[in-house]
Amino acid sequence: MRMRSEIVTSTPEITTREATTRYAINALLRRRWSSRAFADAPVLAEVLGSLFEAARWSPSAGNGQPWSFIVADKARDPEGFVRALATLNESNQGWVQRAPILVFAVTRRIRPDGKEHGRAQYDLGLAVKSLVLQAIDLGLNVRQMAGFNADAARELFAIPEGHDPIVAIAIGYPGATSDLAASLQESEGKPRERKPLESFVFGSQFGRTYEGLRNDE
Amino acid sequence: MRMRSEIVTSTPEITTREATTRYAINALLRRRWSSRAFADAPVLAEVLGSLFEAARWSPSAGNGQPWSFIVADKARDPEGFVRALATLNESNQGWVQRAPILVFAVTRRIRPDGKEHGRAQYDLGLAVKSLVLQAIDLGLNVRQMAGFNADAARELFAIPEGHDPIVAIAIGYPGATSDLAASLQESEGKPRERKPLESFVFGSQFGRTYEGLRNDE
Repeated sequence: MRMRSEIVTSTPEITTREATTRYAINALLRRRWSSRAFADAPVLAEVLGSLFEAARWSPSAGNGQPWSFIVADKARDPEGFVRALATLNESNQGWVQRAPILVFAVTRRIRPDGKEHGRAQYDLGLAVKSLVLQAIDLGLNVRQMAGFNADAARELFAIPEGHDPIVAIAIGYPGATSDLAASLQESEGKPRERKPLESFVFGSQFGRTYEGLRNDE
Repeated sequence: MRMRSEIVTSTPEITTREATTRYAINALLRRRWSSRAFADAPVLAEVLGSLFEAARWSPSAGNGQPWSFIVADKARDPEGFVRALATLNESNQGWVQRAPILVFAVTRRIRPDGKEHGRAQYDLGLAVKSLVLQAIDLGLNVRQMAGFNADAARELFAIPEGHDPIVAIAIGYPGATSDLAASLQESEGKPRERKPLESFVFGSQFGRTYEGLRNDE
């Protein structure tokens, strides 16, 4: 806990940006935000354990638990971390190299019986959201990235056929050096945007506004 | 809040079943459990609003927000609810008919530019997990079901090509009549099972145990 507050104190330029909501939501969900500003501070194995434990207890179709995670840990394997980093798009590499942990989230697209899973990505999304929220709860910053070379990751980590890497996830404590903070202010200072509820919550038919929310205003 | 405690009091047979964890996780994640025992009590529009607001603030690739939700609300449209219920597998219909709300979670597989999204299901999973946890936070019970007829749902709700219904979600307050509680005890009394962390958290390579967790014991 001491570590976390020290980091926040040393980087007053970086702030979390809470969601603006019409209906109240849980503080963890409100605080979740994908910042690119990582501090160099290490993440303890016990902390990482909580993140994967959170994912572990996620629900899945038929309790199939199709997810797996490959950890690139800068402290334990600096060279492996560099190789993992190299699978990311160039724009992601700059920020993520400061994070101590890079995780590749993988899902089993082909079931043990040889059939297509059908909801393998969906189940992985459920599990990763738990991991992300557990991380937020522990004061960490998490950034998911679709921008990486899946073929390169498959080769590097020897991911077998039937399993697909879906996202890379940078994990660390929030923060950045002062010179980076200035450019972050620029790139991350834009307002957070989401579609209005009426545009994606429908009643009885796709595209028709759900009256429950309309009448509630 | 009054409503919730009344329901719990009236159905002492139904209890939530917390996850057993080696590493500590957030209480919401620990309490989440897909029970089939729903009370008849209605869910207010404001409460539903919080659930969809939670989903709304989920992250997504390129902030594409491919999710949408179709609400079958028993109180507002009893006949529509029955039609929605009929798309579920028979085994699900028995329990879900007691829930006041049935939501179909849909994702946009084809992007506006005509290309395959690639992570449409994944992003939906992230969003639904937020919805589920917000529901748990508000004392609700949520059960996701892959067992429904997607073609029938597409026709009933006029879901356009390029969008796919992925899961049906029953939402309501926990509870059940006494006679149902007995059979629930039987069907839901089994221990909750998950794969051990070592079987899906890997270091440096797929299938190789991540030493961070091994050394931490």
